[in-house]
Amino acid sequence: MSSFYGENLRFTIFGQSHSPAIGVTIEGIPAGHHIQFEELQKFLNRRAPGRSPTATARQEADVPSFVSGLVNGITCGAPITAIIENTDVRTQDYQSLKDSPRPGHADFTSQMKFHGYQDPTGGGHFSGRLTAPLCIVGGICLQLLRSEGICVAAHIQSIGPVQDSTFDPVSVDAALLDSIPGKAMALIDDSRAAHMEQAILEAKSNGDSLGGIIECAVVGLPAGLGDPMFAGMENRISQAVFGIPAVRGIEFGTGFAAAQMLGSEHNDPYDWKHGQVRTRTNHHGGILGGITSGMPLIFRTALKPTPSIAKVQESVSLRQKQGISIQIQGRHDPCIVPRAVPCVEAAAAVAIYDALLQRRKEG
Amino acid sequence: MSSFYGENLRFTIFGQSHSPAIGVTIEGIPAGHHIQFEELQKFLNRRAPGRSPTATARQEADVPSFVSGLVNGITCGAPITAIIENTDVRTQDYQSLKDSPRPGHADFTSQMKFHGYQDPTGGGHFSGRLTAPLCIVGGICLQLLRSEGICVAAHIQSIGPVQDSTFDPVSVDAALLDSIPGKAMALIDDSRAAHMEQAILEAKSNGDSLGGIIECAVVGLPAGLGDPMFAGMENRISQAVFGIPAVRGIEFGTGFAAAQMLGSEHNDPYDWKHGQVRTRTNHHGGILGGITSGMPLIFRTALKPTPSIAKVQESVSLRQKQGISIQIQGRHDPCIVPRAVPCVEAAAAVAIYDALLQRRKEG
Amino acid sequence: MSSFYGENLRFTIFGQSHSPAIGVTIEGIPAGHHIQFEELQKFLNRRAPGRSPTATARQEADVPSFVSGLVNGITCGAPITAIIENTDVRTQDYQSLKDSPRPGHADFTSQMKFHGYQDPTGGGHFSGRLTAPLCIVGGICLQLLRSEGICVAAHIQSIGPVQDSTFDPVSVDAALLDSIPGKAMALIDDSRAAHMEQAILEAKSNGDSLGGIIECAVVGLPAGLGDPMFAGMENRISQAVFGIPAVRGIEFGTGFAAAQMLGSEHNDPYDWKHGQVRTRTNHHGGILGGITSGMPLIFRTALKPTPSIAKVQESVSLRQKQGISIQIQGRHDPCIVPRAVPCVEAAAAVAIYDALLQRRKEG
Amino acid sequence: MSSFYGENLRFTIFGQSHSPAIGVTIEGIPAGHHIQFEELQKFLNRRAPGRSPTATARQEADVPSFVSGLVNGITCGAPITAIIENTDVRTQDYQSLKDSPRPGHADFTSQMKFHGYQDPTGGGHFSGRLTAPLCIVGGICLQLLRSEGICVAAHIQSIGPVQDSTFDPVSVDAALLDSIPGKAMALIDDSRAAHMEQAILEAKSNGDSLGGIIECAVVGLPAGLGDPMFAGMENRISQAVFGIPAVRGIEFGTGFAAAQMLGSEHNDPYDWKHGQVRTRTNHHGGILGGITSGMPLIFRTALKPTPSIAKVQESVSLRQKQGISIQIQGRHDPCIVPRAVPCVEAAAAVAIYDALLQRRKEG
Repeated sequence: MSSFYGENLRFTIFGQSHSPAIGVTIEGIPAGHHIQFEELQKFLNRRAPGRSPTATARQEADVPSFVSGLVNGITCGAPITAIIENTDVRTQDYQSLKDSPRPGHADFTSQMKFHGYQDPTGGGHFSGRLTAPLCIVGGICLQLLRSEGICVAAHIQSIGPVQDSTFDPVSVDAALLDSIPGKAMALIDDSRAAHMEQAILEAKSNGDSLGGIIECAVVGLPAGLGDPMFAGMENRISQAVFGIPAVRGIEFGTGFAAAQMLGSEHNDPYDWKHGQVRTRTNHHGGILGGITSGMPLIFRTALKPTPSIAKVQESVSLRQKQGISIQIQGRHDPCIVPRAVPCVEAAAAVAIYDALLQRRKEG
Repeated sequence: MSSFYGENLRFTIFGQSHSPAIGVTIEGIPAGHHIQFEELQKFLNRRAPGRSPTATARQEADVPSFVSGLVNGITCGAPITAIIENTDVRTQDYQSLKDSPRPGHADFTSQMKFHGYQDPTGGGHFSGRLTAPLCIVGGICLQLLRSEGICVAAHIQSIGPVQDSTFDPVSVDAALLDSIPGKAMALIDDSRAAHMEQAILEAKSNGDSLGGIIECAVVGLPAGLGDPMFAGMENRISQAVFGIPAVRGIEFGTGFAAAQMLGSEHNDPYDWKHGQVRTRTNHHGGILGGITSGMPLIFRTALKPTPSIAKVQESVSLRQKQGISIQIQGRHDPCIVPRAVPCVEAAAAVAIYDALLQRRKEG
Repeated sequence: MSSFYGENLRFTIFGQSHSPAIGVTIEGIPAGHHIQFEELQKFLNRRAPGRSPTATARQEADVPSFVSGLVNGITCGAPITAIIENTDVRTQDYQSLKDSPRPGHADFTSQMKFHGYQDPTGGGHFSGRLTAPLCIVGGICLQLLRSEGICVAAHIQSIGPVQDSTFDPVSVDAALLDSIPGKAMALIDDSRAAHMEQAILEAKSNGDSLGGIIECAVVGLPAGLGDPMFAGMENRISQAVFGIPAVRGIEFGTGFAAAQMLGSEHNDPYDWKHGQVRTRTNHHGGILGGITSGMPLIFRTALKPTPSIAKVQESVSLRQKQGISIQIQGRHDPCIVPRAVPCVEAAAAVAIYDALLQRRKEG
Repeated sequence: MSSFYGENLRFTIFGQSHSPAIGVTIEGIPAGHHIQFEELQKFLNRRAPGRSPTATARQEADVPSFVSGLVNGITCGAPITAIIENTDVRTQDYQSLKDSPRPGHADFTSQMKFHGYQDPTGGGHFSGRLTAPLCIVGGICLQLLRSEGICVAAHIQSIGPVQDSTFDPVSVDAALLDSIPGKAMALIDDSRAAHMEQAILEAKSNGDSLGGIIECAVVGLPAGLGDPMFAGMENRISQAVFGIPAVRGIEFGTGFAAAQMLGSEHNDPYDWKHGQVRTRTNHHGGILGGITSGMPLIFRTALKPTPSIAKVQESVSLRQKQGISIQIQGRHDPCIVPRAVPCVEAAAAVAIYDALLQRRKEG
């Protein structure tokens, strides 16, 4: 299913890379919320292609058209459908994909699943282009969260070997988070931008690609969001984040490094501070038992290098039942990580907004 | 919600650490499947407490009683409810938990969520004890998967600093996977068992605890399982695995390490072998676009050190609104990792079996 | 599925007529609600068998045991599971059911669905006995609704040819509704009780059975509950009410009779009364566009005559592939309608309580 | 929610009467099905407005545009979104609706639910116009059912006082069902058409409106479709049918009349005929225990008279907090029943197709 079935917020992302349009149909956003279209467009532009030498040359304006669910820009309680028309479509690049699957892509697996009826063009429904509708619903949720004092932002923790600084899990605040989205490169330490760009261009010039890690922080969360077991904040956020193509792993708080710590190191001591319960350290990443503690929520997610590379690769011909070499044509990102940053924010936002709605009815 | 809402398999895990009983109510298992009770009990015993010096001393037989859904041990299509009575209950250990939350536990967050009405005793619904019902439903799914030639097994990749070997992602097979569950310690390289046990006992004698990493492999999967975007195999497995307390991260295939690879390294070349499409390497961990490729499915998950440690810790008194020191009494595992291995297998099995049912109706 | 998946309240009813136990697992009831057990038991007793000459002679105490979800009788936010053990079990009555399906029962259809693996004994999972767990969850919801000023009650509008009075859809109030549940026969006009009992006993003495109509009213509902299209109050209530075996139809407000009215007759004029918007008539039965208007919600549901009758009936032998005559043994209700009254209230209550929770999060 | 959440088929209907577009987003239709567009358009035309003197004068071509989910007219497994642009929009008719709710409409209740943020124009999301997208998804399901030998058709059983013949529940067959959709008036007995049309025009000339009853039959169903309790065929079909505005009741088989029958009359005797199990009568309407028996599935549904009438009516002014008289302007159907016939078929089709998918995975 291409739907996110939260407890309260539910949406279906539709479209293929080269279908007439892509979009999203959303249910569960209460009536009476004013959508800030300009802000939403700015958010979408951070993901949009064709804006940087490190990204694909495909040109798409990515301006959504809202065909339902709004009255004068305010949610009216009916389902919201927003559509982005696909304009810069080139179908000739993909003729051979059904015979010779591209390594690292969903060509082969989608053919197995859909018995050859899948849309192969440009990756079809598996294209990274489908993250644009995710950013529409996520961008709306970011606005709704912001109006309740909750701030979500992510930065590029690494691209290939080049590292950014990391969020301090205790002191990270809205001021820091607000400073990142406006940057050309979503970094804490701007001095890393040039190194990252250089690493990407070098990979590109070699016909190769790079992956990376994105770190996301959420501040202003009340304690008590989330549900036990299968609807904890980790489960909810993971379900959304693995909806982004190329994501290969996710960790919360100290994450995998926690596996090598002692309990006495990893346990975060409680403290009474400014009339609130806080922890002195934040190895738990703001979540205990699936439920928010009120400390900053921190997670990191790993993205693999873009599978579309210019180098010759080994594949098979399904018809000829033998190995062949292929070379991928078309326009591709040598590194998807910069454009994935708003997608990670969007995924986090939908999961968190859903949990927030859930909390309301529990009084 | 404490329910796992697969597309087809749905279950709710109920109970608290010291409620009259714990258990699970399951829907979606087709009629006509013979449950192997002896095999199921062996599986549950791998998780059960009180069986090793490295585990909690709490004694629970953990023998489920099936009150519905079976006729002569065969599923009849009606919902299955299985119950385990809680016998070795000691409520006196937990009197102060509602005032002074234990670091690293859900005491504080559940109090915020449930406004003080949560069951604090022994962690209540957040107790690791609730993984017993997960192992009931997971153990049944493992049998059903096995009858279709699909084999799921996990091993302890590390406890604290001590490492096991890892699965070879290309050549791992049912023979290797079958060899692990019978071992006292779920390892590939048995020579590591003594080192791990020693590390645990050392932590225990220091009043401390250890975490670790569990690696899970699934072989025999057909290509074509899973759905795009939010119901990919990664999303489904994550939703289930983060239902296990203490899990802090999950990665598929090469996982976080993929972030530092080049596309030309990470892309797995296709090969035509024995009349089948295979990949020569398996960085993708058996999943592309959320859908199985037919290669072994590999994931790793990180568990934090048990938060229940004997050392004095810093907490707060919620009534007195100030910091206090606490020392946890009771019976606890100095390392939950060995007992979590079958839980990870169970979580993987429910997610995979659900995807398998989904595949059937697509013809 | 034997689950009711409300937007917020979700429960699964498990058990078969002669399995070790029957029961219900419930999620979504917020923490902090005190269950009134004595009141719940009184409610369950209205449905319980063996209490009247017009009902089955099967003896079942129907006292639920709550194994999870409560702390000192107060909901703790974790799933609630309640169990009723089956005690008066007689399996010998049903040996031939898999060969010769009883007319009007689910014997044949469940055999087709479950390929012969269904539990045939006493109707298995299709037995009217499964309405006991529905009354547990419904009885709890009735208490929760009552604490918010919402009152649900039903009466027997007819049994065979014998009619009761009907609710006045405008003036029906809590006082009238409260007077009905305590009666031996749930009637507005008590003078009809003897006629109805006589009609049932006459049918019984003829080896036959009777059906009837139950009318249900809900007062105290706020305006604005329910959702458009597929989650309107009619959809929600119907989904629950058709979960009661023997229900063959449902109508809201003026119902089928509306089909013969003019718009100018059926439209309910608005009125401003006591500072509130009211309608002068109530043909709409308290629901417009799927959403409550604040007027009394009225619906009626038709129950077929009990299919278990003592007369010889025509069936087939599935093995011999030919017609045969059968005569049903066992203990059965000559008319299920009196015992179905609390079941209808329970079904209404779960649907309404779910809508009420939904309303909360919309602010 | 404006979504239909089947077990397998899920769709969300979006749009308002005068929003830029209306449409539907569909998940769960397997890949590889060829959509017959011409046939689908014929089906949509049966519902479309502006085609008869008995219907509204609003002109809408109602030609859907499929923006996703198809490759060359064949389903590709990705979500399907189809859109119909709203062209003949007149917003000036509805300015006063937020102050003075129309009797029998959702104006007041939607205002209570959405706190005044609802789209009032033309009934907004509550408009009968939203049944056009229902007919898109239903029309597709009708084609898919037909390809498996399942035929669904409905006729007007009555409009006001004028009756059609009824389906013979035992002998109704595909030949009869196929003959109805092509007729100008969906009747078994064409001689009733003129009487019905006359009744409607008479009501119209009086500034009034009529309701009616629609009877639907499904033949070719295999035995064994549907699930116990809350997912029986009655629950599923009801959930869909009450999604059509103006539906006030539904009954299956003999329905409400069953309440006055004896068990010995209502029970349908089994018969072995042409190598199959059949019943001699069909009071059960093809469903026992929520599961199909293989006999024709029969249900009837009651529609209230169109609430939009030209007569002066009593309403209130919400601002002035007092009663006022209103007169509705605009273009309306004096009787919605003829155009509702394909909507009832569509609702039945989605529920049945969902159950059919469910059956597949049970093997």
